[in-house]
Amino acid sequence: MSRNIRVEQIEQTPIEQQQIELVERKGIGHPDSIADGIAEAISRALCKAYIEECGVYLHHNTDQGEIVAGESIPHFGGGRVVRPIYALLTGRATKSFDGINIPADTIAVEAARAYVRGIIPIMNMEGDIIVDCRMGSGSTDLRDVFKACGGSAMMRANDTSFGIGHAPFSETESLVKGVSDYIDDVYRPRNPAIGTDVKVMGLRDTDAITLTLAVAMVDRYLTDIGEYVETVNRLRESIEEIAPQFTSRKVHVDVNTADDITAGSVFLTVNGTSAEMGDDGSVGRGNRCNGLITPGRPMSMEATSGKNPINHIGKIYNLLATEVANTCVAEVEGIEEIYIRLLSQIGHPIDQPLVASAQVIPKPGYDMSKIMPGVEAVIDTGLADIASVTERVIRGELKTF
Amino acid sequence: MSRNIRVEQIEQTPIEQQQIELVERKGIGHPDSIADGIAEAISRALCKAYIEECGVYLHHNTDQGEIVAGESIPHFGGGRVVRPIYALLTGRATKSFDGINIPADTIAVEAARAYVRGIIPIMNMEGDIIVDCRMGSGSTDLRDVFKACGGSAMMRANDTSFGIGHAPFSETESLVKGVSDYIDDVYRPRNPAIGTDVKVMGLRDTDAITLTLAVAMVDRYLTDIGEYVETVNRLRESIEEIAPQFTSRKVHVDVNTADDITAGSVFLTVNGTSAEMGDDGSVGRGNRCNGLITPGRPMSMEATSGKNPINHIGKIYNLLATEVANTCVAEVEGIEEIYIRLLSQIGHPIDQPLVASAQVIPKPGYDMSKIMPGVEAVIDTGLADIASVTERVIRGELKTF
Amino acid sequence: MSRNIRVEQIEQTPIEQQQIELVERKGIGHPDSIADGIAEAISRALCKAYIEECGVYLHHNTDQGEIVAGESIPHFGGGRVVRPIYALLTGRATKSFDGINIPADTIAVEAARAYVRGIIPIMNMEGDIIVDCRMGSGSTDLRDVFKACGGSAMMRANDTSFGIGHAPFSETESLVKGVSDYIDDVYRPRNPAIGTDVKVMGLRDTDAITLTLAVAMVDRYLTDIGEYVETVNRLRESIEEIAPQFTSRKVHVDVNTADDITAGSVFLTVNGTSAEMGDDGSVGRGNRCNGLITPGRPMSMEATSGKNPINHIGKIYNLLATEVANTCVAEVEGIEEIYIRLLSQIGHPIDQPLVASAQVIPKPGYDMSKIMPGVEAVIDTGLADIASVTERVIRGELKTF
Amino acid sequence: MSRNIRVEQIEQTPIEQQQIELVERKGIGHPDSIADGIAEAISRALCKAYIEECGVYLHHNTDQGEIVAGESIPHFGGGRVVRPIYALLTGRATKSFDGINIPADTIAVEAARAYVRGIIPIMNMEGDIIVDCRMGSGSTDLRDVFKACGGSAMMRANDTSFGIGHAPFSETESLVKGVSDYIDDVYRPRNPAIGTDVKVMGLRDTDAITLTLAVAMVDRYLTDIGEYVETVNRLRESIEEIAPQFTSRKVHVDVNTADDITAGSVFLTVNGTSAEMGDDGSVGRGNRCNGLITPGRPMSMEATSGKNPINHIGKIYNLLATEVANTCVAEVEGIEEIYIRLLSQIGHPIDQPLVASAQVIPKPGYDMSKIMPGVEAVIDTGLADIASVTERVIRGELKTF
Repeated sequence: MSRNIRVEQIEQTPIEQQQIELVERKGIGHPDSIADGIAEAISRALCKAYIEECGVYLHHNTDQGEIVAGESIPHFGGGRVVRPIYALLTGRATKSFDGINIPADTIAVEAARAYVRGIIPIMNMEGDIIVDCRMGSGSTDLRDVFKACGGSAMMRANDTSFGIGHAPFSETESLVKGVSDYIDDVYRPRNPAIGTDVKVMGLRDTDAITLTLAVAMVDRYLTDIGEYVETVNRLRESIEEIAPQFTSRKVHVDVNTADDITAGSVFLTVNGTSAEMGDDGSVGRGNRCNGLITPGRPMSMEATSGKNPINHIGKIYNLLATEVANTCVAEVEGIEEIYIRLLSQIGHPIDQPLVASAQVIPKPGYDMSKIMPGVEAVIDTGLADIASVTERVIRGELKTF
Repeated sequence: MSRNIRVEQIEQTPIEQQQIELVERKGIGHPDSIADGIAEAISRALCKAYIEECGVYLHHNTDQGEIVAGESIPHFGGGRVVRPIYALLTGRATKSFDGINIPADTIAVEAARAYVRGIIPIMNMEGDIIVDCRMGSGSTDLRDVFKACGGSAMMRANDTSFGIGHAPFSETESLVKGVSDYIDDVYRPRNPAIGTDVKVMGLRDTDAITLTLAVAMVDRYLTDIGEYVETVNRLRESIEEIAPQFTSRKVHVDVNTADDITAGSVFLTVNGTSAEMGDDGSVGRGNRCNGLITPGRPMSMEATSGKNPINHIGKIYNLLATEVANTCVAEVEGIEEIYIRLLSQIGHPIDQPLVASAQVIPKPGYDMSKIMPGVEAVIDTGLADIASVTERVIRGELKTF
Repeated sequence: MSRNIRVEQIEQTPIEQQQIELVERKGIGHPDSIADGIAEAISRALCKAYIEECGVYLHHNTDQGEIVAGESIPHFGGGRVVRPIYALLTGRATKSFDGINIPADTIAVEAARAYVRGIIPIMNMEGDIIVDCRMGSGSTDLRDVFKACGGSAMMRANDTSFGIGHAPFSETESLVKGVSDYIDDVYRPRNPAIGTDVKVMGLRDTDAITLTLAVAMVDRYLTDIGEYVETVNRLRESIEEIAPQFTSRKVHVDVNTADDITAGSVFLTVNGTSAEMGDDGSVGRGNRCNGLITPGRPMSMEATSGKNPINHIGKIYNLLATEVANTCVAEVEGIEEIYIRLLSQIGHPIDQPLVASAQVIPKPGYDMSKIMPGVEAVIDTGLADIASVTERVIRGELKTF
Repeated sequence: MSRNIRVEQIEQTPIEQQQIELVERKGIGHPDSIADGIAEAISRALCKAYIEECGVYLHHNTDQGEIVAGESIPHFGGGRVVRPIYALLTGRATKSFDGINIPADTIAVEAARAYVRGIIPIMNMEGDIIVDCRMGSGSTDLRDVFKACGGSAMMRANDTSFGIGHAPFSETESLVKGVSDYIDDVYRPRNPAIGTDVKVMGLRDTDAITLTLAVAMVDRYLTDIGEYVETVNRLRESIEEIAPQFTSRKVHVDVNTADDITAGSVFLTVNGTSAEMGDDGSVGRGNRCNGLITPGRPMSMEATSGKNPINHIGKIYNLLATEVANTCVAEVEGIEEIYIRLLSQIGHPIDQPLVASAQVIPKPGYDMSKIMPGVEAVIDTGLADIASVTERVIRGELKTF
């Protein structure tokens, strides 16, 4: 059965030519990202357990969950958390199947703790965080749909929902994502005073980009306010240095501008995350699955993290749409911008969306009629191969936030 | 000091001329909406208490919180909730100020319960829901900013953040919102079997609109599957009847299409919400402050509900941007579409955004130079009068979801 | 099969002739008593549901549960609770039986709230207390034992455990219980400023009895410290007046001696219980099933409240032992003091204890050989009629704390 | 000021001559004991922190707290916990003093986890247990009393309460305690299949003692039901062998008599405690501070574990009374049995009880007038040295359950 794929050209001022552009990324230690990461870690751990113990993936949905902030008293040289962060695991999972019991709650708690330990190794897992669990066991309907499919047939959509993706990144988007990755991959390993809770906001006003970073600093690695200021300044300078890799526009960098150095009111933390000191987090409130929040682009409000990667459209279609958009740009010549929307129909095979829509802004001089077949082919291939999304999610090869 | 207002024309295929359009609204009884409504009810109750007891509004932020689904066994004629919904109130609030203690936790629990009782009067508040509270007391920095401002001076932004709004609604948007309001205001009062958890999804494919509704039905008002089917059908017909008020396009209406009537697997609930049977909800995951989820439009990921309405940009600027957009369309001739973005700078007066940006698609034949001054004036007035947003939020005159 | 009943005479200085005697009672609003009362209310509600819906009583055990204190700021004329009391319901219950689902969690929450509302009508149930539930569903073994018995056959003991009772009350015991009842039944109804959290401790030193009362006063019914002092004094005088009804010994009464009137540090509360302001409570930590704590008498550490009244020895045998002891004193002449111990054997019929032991101190001049047969007969009758304990517990005719 | 010490002779059939005697001990892995141990571990950790950071011990009371059972599926060779145990830490502690912040919540969670890890090293601390915390910050009055005393002066009683102790142990008491210690200290280290949740109940009927043990077996160390039975039998035989060390009476030993071997319904667990599978636990519901539950002896209902060891009478007087009783028996000739009761007066120095009462049953042929002065001296010395109780509790030298 051929798929309902629609490719249209739209008239639109390309993002780079718009006057104002806003882009944001919440780093891995931001409370919302911690919530996302935990949700996804639980889903992956459940998938692993299901396949090992039952031979099939089973219904679950852990795309909710809440990080309730603790209280800390940071101090140069090393302060402490006085009230632990409280992480509530919710959602639901299949807990017994075909006579086999799956210890879903235990798996969830274990996965959540392992995840947090992994991303914030300096955190005292014995006292700085409480991981609680109130996971239910799902609604019968959804489970039925799921079982009916067995292991091999094409999964059926769990809901009428959609996924959205765009490509390519604008310069500001690349910059925001690039700076965030640079801090995670390059800068923090050499500068442990830089916490994981890094919020990067990019504002482009015509050709001037302002990057505003809020960076939680880790108190134990800083001796005094002087070293704090110096460390913040060095980070700012490093970012200014790498910024030209992403854009030729002028980039102004601000780090922790809300600090009041004289008053000693600075963004100092014990473990490098504001979750320890007043900022709650929720699954699905932070980055979209391309790693960014882009209010000037079409976005899905669905949480990608924590949803099951087998039949949950809110996850699979967001990931696939983003991937397809990137592939189109890479493989089809002449695309200035492309927006992909995949809309499911509850109960129908997931490789047969109700509609797969592509909106294309061609590059100047390119003809839409030449672009269209290529885009159609990429979308068609992506849908045909949709099962690989599931597999790659479970193997941790696809990021969800 | 004059405000940094930027009005630009953008080239863009107007939404009505795009091929595919997606719009969604989650009704008041949807788990995400319940979370939003509770969050906002708590904020309003706190504001009321602060002004009564301290004479000033105080810092609080209750824009988090989780609805953990219960379990129910619905039954025609009346089933029951077997495991209560668990609502966790989080966030933080000022609990003492100037020697006055404000019973913030008690206020929060009371407001949450009163809110749920108000929107779902059939719910057994003694057994069907547990309202728990783990609210903290905020970070010192934010409180300082807040106190410094006193009661009268212009508030200062609590964060570097932004708000977004657009106008006018497209036909599909009007239809989705209109149908949802029609059910709430007109249809349910006469048909108590219609629950409050109504999800309306609109897909426009060129000139054909498909409205897909998922409507939780209330078991006690239905005697059997026959009456269920009949009730669903009557609702569908009613919606088909009123649809032409919002659009001249062809509208196809589906209600509870995932039902399997033969198997008796239908969307039946005890209290009219899926929160009782497996669907969790979170603040900020549902409707934007204009009442819709519009993935084809610029959107803010910030939760509007539950944030304090005094200096919390994520709330005030979203509400103001939406309002300003509507005022522009109403008062300035020639606007096909307008998008408003307000970007704050932490610590600066909220009536002085870093930039207030308007993107306008003029109607055919209208000149941007004529539109610009009007838009600028509306934005300027809106910002000058920003304190009224606070007041109207507290009085409950502005909806946040 | 004849029962293993052992009656022995013991040499012992009768309690009234011992030099020092200590007796304590925690009133219905004491945190431990609130926990007991909730536990018992849940058990009764479950029994009612089981019999209505399944026709048999089913296994449950709610003899745990915790009252976590709130925080309050009492104030003459009316203060308030600033952090709600948190009541955690635990234990386990049968949630499905023979295809019937019993909404045990909902029943538990409802019963707990109804109980608290009943005993503390002035409490704001919407904000001053949170009732949470983490009830499990019991171990398979216990349930099996239980089901096997059906409705009519003699129940089998759930555990190897015992119950203990004594009679008659000493003068000090009668006084402590009598004063507590007087306050509950007579004095408080006319003096609403007297809270339900009344702790009465009696110390008899030879022939002088000191009654020390800690009485939570209700702020809304008192205008100032003067009225507080006056109210405390009037209560003290009233107790002094009724004390001679229970003893001819000299009784000295102290009420709220820890108060520091000058400093304004007094036992003032919003709702008449210290649970609102720092005192936690647990099931089974307060009064034994005769209403008292009597460290000079044999006591069982088992919680009587909340255990199921069908086969839970820790409950049934404590109640029966107390009742049998009283009946012996009433019906058999010559008993100065009697102590009854009933010891079960797990899996055996509950009317056939491993041993039913009576220790008797005869009155001077009475011969044990005359007393023995009467005591044996009373015990035998009590055991034969043990099912009536179950029924009366469920009907609320037997107090458990 | 001389102390109010009363020593009296009482007539009483010595316990060894009574017909029926009941004694019970709950091992360290019993849910009630886990609760006690956690409570005490937290108190000790807080004391350590207070003295290190503030130079004085500060008010706290963690003598509440609840172990909510999990669910497990034990399996020969190794099963698993499917729902984690939930441990709720409550009580209250001083969280700031003299400008110093003490991270009491973090300390509590850390101490609780470390304690459980210590006593049940096989437990998976990452998934088999959740440690949650809702600790408050105490009532002002108590704190005031406390601060007023400073560090050196004699502490003042926090309450009108009492402590009770007796000596020497009867044979049955020695046997029950001895068998429990033997299992902990000697047998389990060599037989890892024996869990820590060992309940020993001793019934002496004249000269026949029946020891009934309920022993949670650890599944991973047992290959099948055959090895289970064999292991249980070997344990029984070992106990039969050592029993004569404690008594010359005939001892019958039963282990896990509720097992139904044929049906495979045995007391098998994953981690050696029934807390994982349905049995809740609470502080203060298990052993008294002498390690036993002795319903034939005077007992205090007060929890000893978790109370602060500085001024909390319910703890200090129970420990001291038990110690003084033992010292009397060791140092004063002619005591058959002795019962010590210490009664405090709120606000008075703890070395000056309202009354310190000793009831003595002299050995045949001993004159009370010779015993009296020795007992008085021991009590007087014990009270004079009461501060050492505090110190030894903090150093972990005194067991509380």
